[in-house]
Amino acid sequence: MTLTLSEIEAMSRIPRLTLINAITGYKSANLIGSIGADGVPNLAIFSSAVHLGSDPALLGIVTRPVDGAIKLTRHTYRNIHHNGHFTINHVHHSMVEAAHQTSAPYPDEVSEFEAVGLTPLWRDPLKAPYVAESRIRIGLEFVEEYHIKANNTILMIGRVLELELPDGCLDEAGNLDLKMAGSVALSGLDTYHDTQVLHRLPYARI
Amino acid sequence: MTLTLSEIEAMSRIPRLTLINAITGYKSANLIGSIGADGVPNLAIFSSAVHLGSDPALLGIVTRPVDGAIKLTRHTYRNIHHNGHFTINHVHHSMVEAAHQTSAPYPDEVSEFEAVGLTPLWRDPLKAPYVAESRIRIGLEFVEEYHIKANNTILMIGRVLELELPDGCLDEAGNLDLKMAGSVALSGLDTYHDTQVLHRLPYARI
Repeated sequence: MTLTLSEIEAMSRIPRLTLINAITGYKSANLIGSIGADGVPNLAIFSSAVHLGSDPALLGIVTRPVDGAIKLTRHTYRNIHHNGHFTINHVHHSMVEAAHQTSAPYPDEVSEFEAVGLTPLWRDPLKAPYVAESRIRIGLEFVEEYHIKANNTILMIGRVLELELPDGCLDEAGNLDLKMAGSVALSGLDTYHDTQVLHRLPYARI
Repeated sequence: MTLTLSEIEAMSRIPRLTLINAITGYKSANLIGSIGADGVPNLAIFSSAVHLGSDPALLGIVTRPVDGAIKLTRHTYRNIHHNGHFTINHVHHSMVEAAHQTSAPYPDEVSEFEAVGLTPLWRDPLKAPYVAESRIRIGLEFVEEYHIKANNTILMIGRVLELELPDGCLDEAGNLDLKMAGSVALSGLDTYHDTQVLHRLPYARI
């Protein structure tokens, strides 16, 4: 079936955002940890983490604008601006329901860690909480941001400061075994997947 | 195990880029179709497609700079600039090896479609080729780009003009069944995965 631009625009809001959130394919499922001036640790699920480069190691996340409708990503944005640090924590298959629940609109004074039953893990000198239940954890410092004019979203860029990985998941060639680490893949807004390796292919040559 | 910043920086180049390309988690596997002023259809595998918004439907891809070392993404960048259109085509599990092979450094005059054995599919008025073997295809027009100062990469933003989906994969609520469509997930640079649904969760409420 084909959906034209006018058919996409004619869809009602929820089915359209459900569909468009799925069309890029499988996505990462990560919890972003941060803390604000009020001292409340914040945790929010994101599927927009994107690799930007390896030397230096730079990752991006896409957030809603600060004046937008979704409070949670506003907290993440505000907190990262406040102290310059954040964490990216893989959603493990045993914590999918708690991770998904962080997307509920908790009030400012409630920490999503407590609300959903996940455990903040602090590592000096990083000024942002990791998620203890995650098996792959990334500590980052904020580098720069780009305000995307086309729809008033923000690309926030962080530099990797440290990585915490489960023993046995990383080989000497740098291969990270996400399946062994128990990370899940996300499609759309709500569907979490386990994986099976189909092919591991060599570097492509002519 | 923990990798500190100095340990990450001390890694040799290939293991570091192999690792850092995997740390965000599972990624989409897409072929970007484009065509340049020379009339040669170009096809390149990307794992950086990111959802930016649903109304209008906007997606981003991250490319290397035009003066960078990797020719293929230079072609994609140059072609999208040339005529303003591109396509995003999901990698289906039956075409993983051909899709991966598009990352080989073919010379300018060689179309990756021919070189890897995939079929260009043209739909008026889109000035970019789809991949006939893909089951989920997205036609886009270029909207704007952001040059990321931190590492001289480019975020290119496209607006969805049309979607082609396999029959039966989209329900009335907008849910797109990527498993039924046969799309694969990618980890790192070279490992392609099939998936199994673990959980589909309701919209989170307090």
